[in-house]
Parts: sequence; structure tokens; C-alpha cells
Amino acid sequence: MLLRTLLTNLRARSLPLAGSGMSIRFASTLAPLDSTKLTIEHTTTPKPKLAKEDLVFGKYFTDHMLEIEWTASSGWSTPKITPYHNLSLDPSTIVFHYAFELFEGMKAYRDSNGDIRTFRGDKNMIRMNKSAERIALPTFDGEELLKCIDKFLLVDRDFVPEGNGYSLYLRPTMIGTTASLGVGVPDKALLYVIASPVGPYYSSGFKPVSLEATDYAVRAWPGGVGDKKLGANYAPCVKPQLEAASRGYAQNLWLFGEEGYITEVGTMNVFFVFKNQDGKRELVTAPLDGTILEGVTRDSILELAKDRLDSAEWTISERKYTIGEVEERANKGELVEAFGAGTAAIVSPIKSIGFRDGRNIEVPVALGNSGELTSQVAEWIRKIQYGEESYKNWSRVAK
Amino acid sequence: MLLRTLLTNLRARSLPLAGSGMSIRFASTLAPLDSTKLTIEHTTTPKPKLAKEDLVFGKYFTDHMLEIEWTASSGWSTPKITPYHNLSLDPSTIVFHYAFELFEGMKAYRDSNGDIRTFRGDKNMIRMNKSAERIALPTFDGEELLKCIDKFLLVDRDFVPEGNGYSLYLRPTMIGTTASLGVGVPDKALLYVIASPVGPYYSSGFKPVSLEATDYAVRAWPGGVGDKKLGANYAPCVKPQLEAASRGYAQNLWLFGEEGYITEVGTMNVFFVFKNQDGKRELVTAPLDGTILEGVTRDSILELAKDRLDSAEWTISERKYTIGEVEERANKGELVEAFGAGTAAIVSPIKSIGFRDGRNIEVPVALGNSGELTSQVAEWIRKIQYGEESYKNWSRVAK
Repeated sequence: MLLRTLLTNLRARSLPLAGSGMSIRFASTLAPLDSTKLTIEHTTTPKPKLAKEDLVFGKYFTDHMLEIEWTASSGWSTPKITPYHNLSLDPSTIVFHYAFELFEGMKAYRDSNGDIRTFRGDKNMIRMNKSAERIALPTFDGEELLKCIDKFLLVDRDFVPEGNGYSLYLRPTMIGTTASLGVGVPDKALLYVIASPVGPYYSSGFKPVSLEATDYAVRAWPGGVGDKKLGANYAPCVKPQLEAASRGYAQNLWLFGEEGYITEVGTMNVFFVFKNQDGKRELVTAPLDGTILEGVTRDSILELAKDRLDSAEWTISERKYTIGEVEERANKGELVEAFGAGTAAIVSPIKSIGFRDGRNIEVPVALGNSGELTSQVAEWIRKIQYGEESYKNWSRVAK
Repeated sequence: MLLRTLLTNLRARSLPLAGSGMSIRFASTLAPLDSTKLTIEHTTTPKPKLAKEDLVFGKYFTDHMLEIEWTASSGWSTPKITPYHNLSLDPSTIVFHYAFELFEGMKAYRDSNGDIRTFRGDKNMIRMNKSAERIALPTFDGEELLKCIDKFLLVDRDFVPEGNGYSLYLRPTMIGTTASLGVGVPDKALLYVIASPVGPYYSSGFKPVSLEATDYAVRAWPGGVGDKKLGANYAPCVKPQLEAASRGYAQNLWLFGEEGYITEVGTMNVFFVFKNQDGKRELVTAPLDGTILEGVTRDSILELAKDRLDSAEWTISERKYTIGEVEERANKGELVEAFGAGTAAIVSPIKSIGFRDGRNIEVPVALGNSGELTSQVAEWIRKIQYGEESYKNWSRVAK
């Protein structure tokens, strides 16, 4: 909360910010994000619903969107649900030039009662605020945004598709909207949420992927922003993905440093399972050292694994580990399975990891298309997401 | 050109790109960027010109803008000069989510004949294409864009302010405009140029700045994109700048690694001058190792220094050097001067570098507000920019 404190101090002292051309007003006049002020304007031209088999991730959106403007002088304005519409922005707007932008990925699920549920949205709100703070965009009360999202879900509830694996993908987004080419603290921002109905990531069972061990491009580094969900982390990863694709791989396995630490896969966190000498199994993922996105699915897997796997048989580790360790243990027959983890797929099983020198690590898929734990954790999480099982406060019904 | 080749190959083979939902058409149908097709629509509501003393960097723009759309299926469309206007974009557009955005900074100067000149725009075009290639946005013939920019300058020539230090700042920008939340290769893009009249960076002589030696945040990393002019490199640097400002410093001196390599200052390249034991002076800047922006001003200073400084008295070095070396040589009396270098200011003299542990390096400013070489190179470049002196093909008159 260092930056917010600093900004508040700067505002409180009414200091002009260097190079920004803005003067900042007294902090106490700033309005908080307030869900009770939400207004709703219903569309007069509802869209036809697409057939479930025609759904494509992130291409087709619901009838409405949620928008909340922010200014440094007034704080958060009235949350508004309005018909889905284009954004009209001056070409000098800082989101186009300096990547003042961040987002979240969440999903809403239709349960067997027809209720609309979201999964651990509180975690998304915490991360969204951390992302905002890191690039000097405004923070907000996450529960207030969740309440607005609940109302948005009720307005567009007919777009939440029914059935296992179907969901409404939610994209909370924040952009800096100051119209000025000066590189400085944004004095205007727009928080908005759009929603896209999506089908199952795997329409007919898991399809395990081959990865390219990637050391020629680096996704994140200490002192950088790789642990935040900023737009800045995504565009630079597309070219390495194309390069991997040109060599027949589905995704990059992002390595870090001369040691070859394993960090993430594509746009997901990644887990490996090893069999130890003592017969115990170890579920391993990289620690949150500043280079790893704080994935909600990652956290959920760790928590469920600690809770549900027998600790006499399993060790759950957040620790640094290298591609060298994975290769060595694969050679010894100690590599059990591996999978990516993220909101889009829940889990994505891995079948092999190739190197540019021609070496290849085969990753076992005991069940044919995935490992046993891979399949297990997917089912654990799915049941909670669809309200088939209750677990802590992880599932929230929109009211 | 690896990515373009790859993309062309992909297109030629009409492959669907993973996750993008696009199919790519045959390469030979793609139109190049063609300045001869330029169309001009003049504004019917010309803006009043601001008084020179009211100019603020990047806040006030000319009557028109230059726009060129690109699609993966058709290539570059007709370049258009139109009245300055907002961009209207779907909220799912990838520029808002994944930072598919890059820019250039150039200036146009009014010479004593009233002609409008640009400075080394060919270098900006090369860099802009490198930036585009790095994030899978389309490349183009830089000379064609320069010809369009020349026409744009002639249309808005009355906005190019007269006088030493005054100029019209040009902001070529490219954004990905695919409306889809899939992280993949953009199939639509917009290249546009806007222009803002600006006054002198230093209205009454140099003002040397104090820097904070910054090791807690890292601007760029090998294998990253710090050498490209991408939006992604900018938003993450604002919070560290605020932190430095809170401790009384104007800018961050970006260090890299445990060794404390000096890389850049704020959003500028940086140069140091040392006095060697043999009496020679050394002008030092960091080499282009992938973490350093390939500054046009940086390149111009190196080239002019090699050309104009007596090699019996000067060594010009692109080499790695550390904050430790700077501190040690300051202690020995061997630090002569230091300055940032970039399009906005040409040069920005440095008077001190502070550390968070309280240490401070005083940087000599022999002329009171700058060092001698700092002042010299600023004048060399200024004369070429304003057409007072001809040097190679560095200054181009808009025709």
C-alpha cells in the first residue's frame, strides 16, 4: 500500500506531480467506489444468443457492460450498467501509449438451481488492486465491485450458458484515460467489466500439450511486474509463442536465469508432481517471488491439495525448481505428471517438454490424456465452481 | 525479421493460429503502406493557436491526424489525414488488455526560411518497425510513412512554433485493434500520428537534476523488451519515479543486476564523462545489449562525438559500467560530468546521484548548470535540427 499512501500524501499536500501538469486535490474529497449508487440502462436492441457450439472465447459479448469512471479530483463516480458500446478516447490517451492497463479473468457459472455463481472473486479483487497500485492507477473496495458485478450478472443472466464446462467469462479491466503524452501518474481512469459466454476449454476430454523450454525470451524478472496482471506482460509473449508454435509446440515453458528455474507456462501457472525416494509424492509449483502471477487457480489447487491429499503420502511445495531437476527426475522415472493451471482451463495437462537442442522430456499421462492428480484437482474445483459442493466461501451466488 | 518471416510463412500456408480464431490468407494479397494513396480531409473547425508560453508537452494537438489501418487479410489501407478525432474501439480491443502498442517520439522544427524539418526520422522508422515486429504487429516501409508525415506537417504547418527550442512533437503510434480477448497475433492494427506544439524543455537555461540510484525496481532485462519503444516499458516505471520523487529526486537512475550496471535515466539514455589517468577523457554510455533503448539522440551524440572530438584527447565508449565505478571515480576526482539524452530535452544535465542508504555522488557541472560536453552536444544537435548547419542526411525538409 506504499503507493496509495504516497499518493494520498501527495494529494493531501496538494503537490503538483513532476511532469504531470496536474495538481492534486485534498484526499478527503475523493468518493469511494459505491455499489449502492449503481444505475442500470437496459438495452433496447438485445442480441440474439449464439448456439452453444458457436461460442468462441472472448469474441462475443453480452448485451451490457459495467463502467465506473475515476478522476484524481473526485474519486470514483457512479457505477453504470449500460448497453455494450465502444469506448471513445482521444488518440493521446495514455492507455494507448504507456500501457496503463490491467485486467482480471473470472467466470460465472450456472448451477443446477439456475443461480449464477462466481468463484473466489475476492481473490481477483485483491490482485486487481495490487495491479492498479503497481502502475499508479486507483484502488477501490473490491467487495463493492463484486456487488456491481453481481448486478451485472443478473441483468445479463440469460447469457450464462448452461452445462458442464460452460460459463460466462468476466473481464474486469482498468485503463488510464488521461489525454496527455506526459509520462506520469494518471489523473483519469476507467474501470469496466465485459462478459463473454464460453464453452468448455476441452470439449471432448483433456488434450495434453507439448511445451518448448524457453530461455531465449524472459517473461518476468525480479524488480519487474510479472506478478501483476498488467497488459504489459502479455504482448511481449506472443512472438515467443509463435516461435514455439513454428517448431510444433503449443506453448512456452518460461524459464528464468542461468539455473533454468521453471516459472510459468504460456499464460498459466504450472505444477509438477515428483515421486520421492521415500515413496511420497511431491506437488511442486514456483513460489510467489515477484516473477510469478498470483493465480487464483494456483492458490485453490495448493489449498485443496493441502486439505485433501494425505500428508503421509504427499508433500505440497512452493519452492524453486529447475528444468534440470525435471529432466533428471524424468530420467530416473520420478516424474509423475505436470499441468498448467489457470481460470480458462482450470488445468491443462502436459505431455512433453522439448528443447531447442533436440532433447525432449516425456511427461507421463497415467490416465491417457492427463495425470491422476491433474484430473482430480480439475474435478475438485469444477464441483465448487458449479455449486455441486460447498467449500469455505469460495462460491458466491449473485443476488 | 524473424517474426515477419514466420508470419509470412504462416500466412502463405494459410494456417489457423493457435488460440487466435483467425485463419491467415495468402501473403501476396497484402497491400504495402503506400504514401501515394494518401487522402486529406481538412478540418472545418480549425483550433485557435495557443500562445507560445501556454504550450504544455503533449496536452494540446494540431487540427489533424494521420491514420493508416492494417488488416491481416488485406495489409495496409489508404493513409488518411483527417480532422483530429477520438478513436472509437470495442472494449474488448486487445490494445486495452494486452498492451499491443508502441510509439515513437520525433520533432519537427521551423527553420529560418520557414521550412519544416524533421531530424533523423529514418532512425525512428527503423526502431518503430523493430518494436512492431517484437509484439507481432505489422511492419511497413518507413520511408513511406515519413512521406505521409511530411504531408501531415505541411497540412498543419501553422502549428509548428517558431523560435529556438520550440518544435512540433510528433507521436507515431501503432496499436492492435483486434476485438477479441484471445491472447494471440493481432489481425487488425491502426498506425496513427498526432502532433503537439511544444516549448523549450529548459525555458531559461539548463536545470541539472538529482537522480536516485534505483535497484529495487528494474526497468529492463535480457530476453525482455526494454530495447523496444513499447507501451509496456512505461507504466511500470511511474511508481518508482513517484517513490524517488518522494525522497526529493527528479528521476530514477536505472541500475541492473548485483553489479549495479548503469542502464538509463528516467525515460532517457545516459552518458558519463570520466577523466582517465593518462589525461584523456572518456565519454561512456551503456552498449545496446537488449536492455537499452536504441535512442536516436544517443546514436547522434556518439556519432558526432566520434566525428568532432579530438581522438588524441577523447575516447568514446559503448561499454558496461557500474554505479560503483562512477562513485569510485567521483571520489578520485575523475568524474567530469553526466547527462541524460533523449528527444524531449536533447540533453538533461545531472548534478547528483543519491542512494537510499544516504550516500550521495556529486556530479560536477563545470559551466554552473551543465558540464562542457553536455552543453556542446546540445548545441551540435540543435543546429542540425533547426537547419542552421547541414550534417549528413540528418535533417529533412517536409515537401
